[in-house]
Parts: sequence; C-alpha cells; structure tokens
Amino acid sequence: MSSTSHDGSRPLPMTVPAQGLPTSVTIYEVGPRDGLQNEKTIVPVEVKAEFVARLLSAGLPVVEATSFVHPKWVPQLADAAELIPMLGSGGRACPVLVPNERGLDRALELGMERIAIFGSATETFAQKNLNRSLDGQLEMFEPTVARALEAGMDVRAYVSMCFGDPWEGAVPVEQVVTVGKRLLDLGASQLSLGDTIGVATPGHVTALLEAFGDAGIGCDRLAMHFHDTYGQALANTYSALRSGVTTYDASAGGLGGCPYAKSATGNLATEDLVWMLDGLGIDHGVDLGAVVETSVWMAGELGRPSPSAVVRALGGAPLDSPA
Amino acid sequence: MSSTSHDGSRPLPMTVPAQGLPTSVTIYEVGPRDGLQNEKTIVPVEVKAEFVARLLSAGLPVVEATSFVHPKWVPQLADAAELIPMLGSGGRACPVLVPNERGLDRALELGMERIAIFGSATETFAQKNLNRSLDGQLEMFEPTVARALEAGMDVRAYVSMCFGDPWEGAVPVEQVVTVGKRLLDLGASQLSLGDTIGVATPGHVTALLEAFGDAGIGCDRLAMHFHDTYGQALANTYSALRSGVTTYDASAGGLGGCPYAKSATGNLATEDLVWMLDGLGIDHGVDLGAVVETSVWMAGELGRPSPSAVVRALGGAPLDSPA
Repeated sequence: MSSTSHDGSRPLPMTVPAQGLPTSVTIYEVGPRDGLQNEKTIVPVEVKAEFVARLLSAGLPVVEATSFVHPKWVPQLADAAELIPMLGSGGRACPVLVPNERGLDRALELGMERIAIFGSATETFAQKNLNRSLDGQLEMFEPTVARALEAGMDVRAYVSMCFGDPWEGAVPVEQVVTVGKRLLDLGASQLSLGDTIGVATPGHVTALLEAFGDAGIGCDRLAMHFHDTYGQALANTYSALRSGVTTYDASAGGLGGCPYAKSATGNLATEDLVWMLDGLGIDHGVDLGAVVETSVWMAGELGRPSPSAVVRALGGAPLDSPA
Repeated sequence: MSSTSHDGSRPLPMTVPAQGLPTSVTIYEVGPRDGLQNEKTIVPVEVKAEFVARLLSAGLPVVEATSFVHPKWVPQLADAAELIPMLGSGGRACPVLVPNERGLDRALELGMERIAIFGSATETFAQKNLNRSLDGQLEMFEPTVARALEAGMDVRAYVSMCFGDPWEGAVPVEQVVTVGKRLLDLGASQLSLGDTIGVATPGHVTALLEAFGDAGIGCDRLAMHFHDTYGQALANTYSALRSGVTTYDASAGGLGGCPYAKSATGNLATEDLVWMLDGLGIDHGVDLGAVVETSVWMAGELGRPSPSAVVRALGGAPLDSPA
C-alpha cells in the first residue's frame, strides 16, 4: 500500500480494492497497430520494432504488432512484413490484424499464430470501411477465419461502432449482440467491443454487457476497447470491471489520435488504465514506469506530447517530486 | 434518446441509465476561483465578470466567483472586491472563498451570502498552506464560521488532500472523517472532499464515503472535488455516484492546471462531467453547448487550448460533424 510520497519512491495511488471486481485483468496493447495506424507521422520500421519490444519487456501480455491491410489504405503500417521478422522469436505470438484472405496469406507466410479481424456493428460503417453490407462482411470473414483456424491460429474479432456510429447515431445493443454472436459462431475466440467514436457512457456499457449475457455470451469471451474522445474511457472501464470483463484494449501513451486536433479520438492510454488498476489492487503484470518511459520516448519520435494524463504527470517530472 | 448523428444535431451520448444512481445532481462550478487561481495568466476583471455571467447563464446552479485571500498569496484573484459588484444582483449569491476573519470582513462588506473555507486533512499541508497545525486551522476557522453564521451566511468547508498528500503519502480515511466532522461541527453545511493531487481511485472513493457514513455523515452533506492529474476524475465520479453523492465540483474547460506542463493538476472539466451525466440520464440543468462555447472563449483569453476532452472534441468542429 503506497501513495504519492516525498521519500524518493515513484508516486503511486493508494491501493483500496472495491467489492465485486475481478482480481486480475489482461491488458491487450494496441498501440503499435491501432495507435500508430491513426497517427499522422509514419514511424520507421526500426522504431516500431523497438516499440513492440519495449512493450513486451514492460510486461504487457499481448501486443498487437501491426496490420496486413493494403498499404493504400493504411500507409502507416505498410512495413508489416518487414517488421515481424525484426521482432525475433516472440514476434510470431503477437496478434496481427488481417482484413481478408490476402492479409491472412501474408500472416501465414510469416508463421503468425494469432490474427484479429475487424468487423462493424453497423451497416453504414461496414459500407464505409469494408465496402460491404453487414451480411457481406460476415461472408468475407468466413473463409478467412476458417483457414486461420485450420492453420491452428487464434482469431480475435473486433466489433466497431458498438455504442454509436457517426452516420446512424445510437446503435441498439441487440444489433451489436447479433453481429458479435455471428463472429463467435465463425470461430473467433474473443470479441473486442469497440467504442470507436468514444460516445459510450457507463450505463450503456452495463446494458451492452447484460445483453450479451442474456444471449449466453459471458464476459470470458469479451474484451472492451474504449476511446477517450469525450474523456469517458476510464469511467466506462470501471463500469465494465463491475460487470466482470477481464480483458481491456489500451494504447501506450494514448496513441491513436492527436489530442490537439479538433476531434481527438485516441485510445484509452495504457498508463491511465494501469494507474486505476493499481489503485483498485487488480493484478495486470505491467511495469508502469517502463511503459511511461516507452511512451515518453515514442512521443519524441512522433514529435508531440502524449495525451495520457499519467504520462504527462510522471513522464517529465523527477519520479520523487510531488505530482 | 439521441447520439452522435449526421443529421445536423449536436452529438450527444445515448442515454442509458445505470441502476442505483441519483436521478439528479448539483454541479458546483469552481472555474472562476479554483480554476483561475491556478492558471499562470492573470485574467482582466472584465473577463472574469463575463466568465461568471456566462456560466450562470449556462444553467450552472452554483458558481464560486473568487477568493478573498491576500493578493500576495493569490495575485490571480486580487481583484475580488472589484469583481463582485460587476456581477450584478446575482453576484452576492455566488460563494466566495475566505481564508480567515479578514477575508470574511471583506465578504461581509460586499453583502455576500455564501462563503467557503479551505481546510486540510493533513498536518503537513495545514502547515504549508495555512502555517498552522491541524488543530490550529480549526481554531482559526472557528470565529470565522461563527461570525458568518451569525450574519446569516451559508458556509461550505473544503477538505483538501483527502486521498493523498505529496509529503505524507497515503491519507487514512479515518483522519479525513475526523477533520471533516470537526468542520461540520463548527457549522459548515457541506464538506467538499478534495483529491487535491489527483491520486484517488474508485475503490478509495467508496471506502472514504463508507467511513463518513459509519460516522453518521451521509452523502447529503458531502460534495466530491476531483482533480484529473492521473486521468481518474471521471471514474472516481462514477464511483461516488454509486455511493449516492449528489454534488460535484467541476471547472469549466478543466481550468486549473495547464495540461502541457509537466505536472498537470487540473480540475475535473465541467463538460466531461456533463457528458457522462447526460449519458446516465442524470439531471443537472446545464446547457452543455453554452459551457463549451464559454470554455472555447476562455481558452482564447488564456492563450492555450482547453484540457477538457469534450471541449477539444466539440469546441472546434462543426456541431454536425462526426466526432
């Protein structure tokens, strides 16, 4: 039990558990993929390799490394095939996003063990992002997932726009459950429920998780993926913890949306999540100081400060100074 | 029930209430006092008067206007006596901070109806901030509060460092309850429990409120005052809502600590709080758009962007654009 102190130790929140929460959670790090994919700056492949290595070394149990999407759509990650061999033996265990069978072919060639597919909960975003209907995206995923499973891969499925869509507005929870259930039926081991535009609030989170529960899909198959566009990501995380979810996507330093742009859409920062988990006494296995140092270094590479509150508070100041 | 949409309406979260929360809350706006007092820029008195007027006009039920502290300590608010008359008839109903009897004298001369005193939960901060012991600060407050009550004023008592102290580290909840109880016994109508350095996490909030409850002090006499130094303010607010607290201090635009400084210590942003309350369907009476516009204007006066996520997301973009 420690707290901010003047004795030279790193400031930490006092640990006071809350009743009814999980005792440990898995942080699924998306900075190198979801983060860098949404940054304007294109980072050199050597920097990406160091980024992934430092995150793994900081204790993050899962680091999604890159995406095998066509470089035309995501030029930031055009070096995926170059990056993976640079990660060494651990690289093949890092999940990679694959949009379709061509992406899967590239992942198979490199011996990857885990892939993620990226679906939409709404008709309009399926059209905008994949140029498919809601049904069409599932038809497209079917052979990709089947072949991945045959090859012994683990498949995670993102469901985007789970709480709201810029074109359709509010998204009914039943619609999200229907899409999620179909992705699980294809063979995905886990759904990552994404608040892509950051409009979720805590009651909505509870309602969505209850709807999944009513459909027989428990929290053990669900992860939450919050964006902090309106500052709600950590309150939503606390709500999901109360519902029993034990996997959370987060991005080191809050990478994934410049906070100084008009519409900041960054991911929940790994550091801010770790801070709350430390306060709640929930195990996660991550070395906060090492992630902060990594984010400070990456902010230098990107040429801008991190949007993470914890990185801002701890990253520049001496570790023994009052916050 | 509305959400982000493309039809020209302002993006709003979908309203999904959570069980067991209050149906309405009071937002106690501290931007003009706690916010501006901690900004480097000294704002002209005319700008302050407009700031308070715009906040009142946006529906904020309580706006703490300024502080009658010696200008030597808080030069930012040296114009308190000049500001109050500029606020018109409503100005006297705005609470003002008074540190001692001399401050009270100035407040009485201006006909103020509500004051706030600022105590510490820790010995060290009482020494640093008031040059008094813990007991000494209570002795100092006693005649101030007694005379204020005689004059028919309402007295609010801030308790600072309720969750951690830069010098003492973790602060035991029992210690906070002891100090808070003595302030209530002096005659304060409400305690504002401050997380002055931002180290609270949700379980700690629950524990502190339970300790007050065990001492016979219910949520009807408590307000929460969170700082967002480590990004935890809104998660802590959600935790306090679950415990039944119905008054929250917040600062328009998150004023009170530059987010680009090494140690950002800003208040919870009023707009981020309003967004969450809207999502939870909790009444507050505040016009979000009007507060955002006020914070955008104030950011211009201060020459820097607002640290509020909602202000960043909504403040610059056209109101009908996707977030």
